This record gives sequence, structure tokens and C-alpha cells, in this order.
Amino acid sequence: MYEVEVKVAAELATVARRLDDLGATRTGDVVQVDTYYDAPHREFAETDEALRVRRETREGETQARITYKGPLVEAESKTREEHETGVAEGETADAIFEKLGFSPAATVEKDREFYRYDGYTVTLDSVEGVGEFVEVETETDENGVEAAREGAYAVLRELGLDPDEQTRTSYLGMLLENTS
Amino acid sequence: MYEVEVKVAAELATVARRLDDLGATRTGDVVQVDTYYDAPHREFAETDEALRVRRETREGETQARITYKGPLVEAESKTREEHETGVAEGETADAIFEKLGFSPAATVEKDREFYRYDGYTVTLDSVEGVGEFVEVETETDENGVEAAREGAYAVLRELGLDPDEQTRTSYLGMLLENTS
Repeated sequence: MYEVEVKVAAELATVARRLDDLGATRTGDVVQVDTYYDAPHREFAETDEALRVRRETREGETQARITYKGPLVEAESKTREEHETGVAEGETADAIFEKLGFSPAATVEKDREFYRYDGYTVTLDSVEGVGEFVEVETETDENGVEAAREGAYAVLRELGLDPDEQTRTSYLGMLLENTS
Repeated sequence: MYEVEVKVAAELATVARRLDDLGATRTGDVVQVDTYYDAPHREFAETDEALRVRRETREGETQARITYKGPLVEAESKTREEHETGVAEGETADAIFEKLGFSPAATVEKDREFYRYDGYTVTLDSVEGVGEFVEVETETDENGVEAAREGAYAVLRELGLDPDEQTRTSYLGMLLENTS
């Protein structure tokens, strides 16, 4: 299964109105606060790995999980090895990593609003200290990647956005660029 | 709060009969499988730290948790800084630590049977590759430590065991001694 995802900077209030006009279904919203860690024995920026503790609040309930992302195994599809599990207490997970010598490198905080439109998930992301973005994504098998990408571009155009302005930089990458 | 704990090697079948004779209450049992990790950047044996992923099975339900134990902060009471949280998937926690460069150093597997007697928790531990042990423990405030320890010795004597034979070595320590 491949995830096709296109992201562009956008003014969210305008896009939300456009989604309403198009009859898109709003499916939920979430606040995600992600703490990324530096390792004591490796440069994650060089090894292309990441260690994250995420806190996600949905309908007043906060859940935490820890995630390890390995380097790209396939550049074209941006596929990574990923290991993720829920944890009962996010603060304790933070404490364990810090005691082991990992140090919090950056915190990415974002409000996400999810819509469903034309077979795609459209996410309106307001990222603290970074800006506002729209992500259009769907899943497909290997043979459907090109068509899925074209479809995502079409959705962006319907929302008044330009697919040529897409960015591949992660929010963490943007945040680190802004602060460095 | 202080935990007073005395541990001696014992033949468990004999101790179980004695507990029955004394009218002790059997309160449950559990299987614990603990994987201890070595760190890629520190010698935990030297820093007196430990990182553990525990799987505990009780009444057919298995739960996992990760625990960091820091060095002794007070030698007399054997007090350590400890951070522990449940995780949804123990295998994923293992995978995350291994991807980060931690390596499984030893696995301690034990069956534990719990009894309640005379204000103490009496635990019958059968530790794979190590042997059989009885632990007598209770919690107390700072002023009660000496009396609690004397009480634990008295319980051991009632069980036909000799407090002078107590061991302070952890099961992990015993396992590593047996295999080295």
C-alpha cells in the first residue's frame, strides 16, 4: 500500500469555505504535539532517523505514543521503516528517553481539521511557528500511484490551490529552518 | 514511603504448604518476562542503571511496560529513581529500542505466586535458570523501617527459613553470574 500525499501552503479560512461550497464532509479534528528527540550517540539529521513522542488530543481525550522512523528505504515512494506504539503516560516516556541521554530537539504543535472529498482526505493544518498548510492524501496500490497523484492535484485545483507550489519539507524541517 | 524487602532461596513447594498451614491468603499469580537492554553509549553495569521491557501475564492477559531504573540515590534504603509506563505493544517497544541501538542483554523469566500474611506480601518466585526464592515485603514510612524488617524476619522464620541467608542480588544479577 502506498500513501500519496501532496502538501501546499494555503490560507485555511479560504480553503475551509471552499470545502463547504464543494459539499466536502468534515470528519474530525485533532491537536498533535510532537516532541522530537536528539540521540546521545548518533546524528539523526545525518542518519535520517527520528524519535518522537506524540500527544494527540481528540474530543478532549489525550493519548500518547512513541514512534521511531528509520531512513528512507525507497526514495520514490518516500517509504520508511516505522515502529509506533501507544504509551499510557507520555510524560514518563519523555522522562525515560531523557534519562537515557536523549534530549528534546524541537516540538511541533499543530491543529488538524480533516475533511473527506472525492475519495481523498483533505487536512487543514495550522502549525505553530510554521504556518498554514493543506494536505491532500489517499492510499493506493503500486499501479495506482500516478493516477492518485493526478487526482490529488485536481482536488488542490478545485480548492483554488496550485499543485506546483507543493512542498516536500516536513513541518519539523520547516520549524528547524525557521529557528536556525 | 519505603519498601522493605527480604529475599532468600527456598524450596517453594515446602513454603507453599507452610503458608497454607498458617492460613495465609493466596492473592494471585503472574508470569513476568523481563528483557533488559544494553545501551549503545553507556555501560549500564558501571552507571548502575537499567532499561527493561516487561511482559506480565495475569489471568491470561498480557500487558507490557517499559521501565528505566536510575542509580541508587540512597544506599541504605536501596532507593532508586524509577520511571515506568505501560505500552500498548511490547514488541514495538523492543523494536524501537533495538533500532535506536540498544541490544537485549538478558531475559529474566519468572512465575510469581502472591500471598498475604500478617501484614506482609509473601511472594514465591520460580526464576528460570536461577532458582526458587521467597520474598517478604511491606511498605512503611521512614520511622518504621527497622520494625518492618524485624517483622519480615519473623515471617521468614515462621516459614521455616533463615533470615541470615538473605540475598541482595537481583535476579538479573544472579542470571548474569550463572551465565558468565
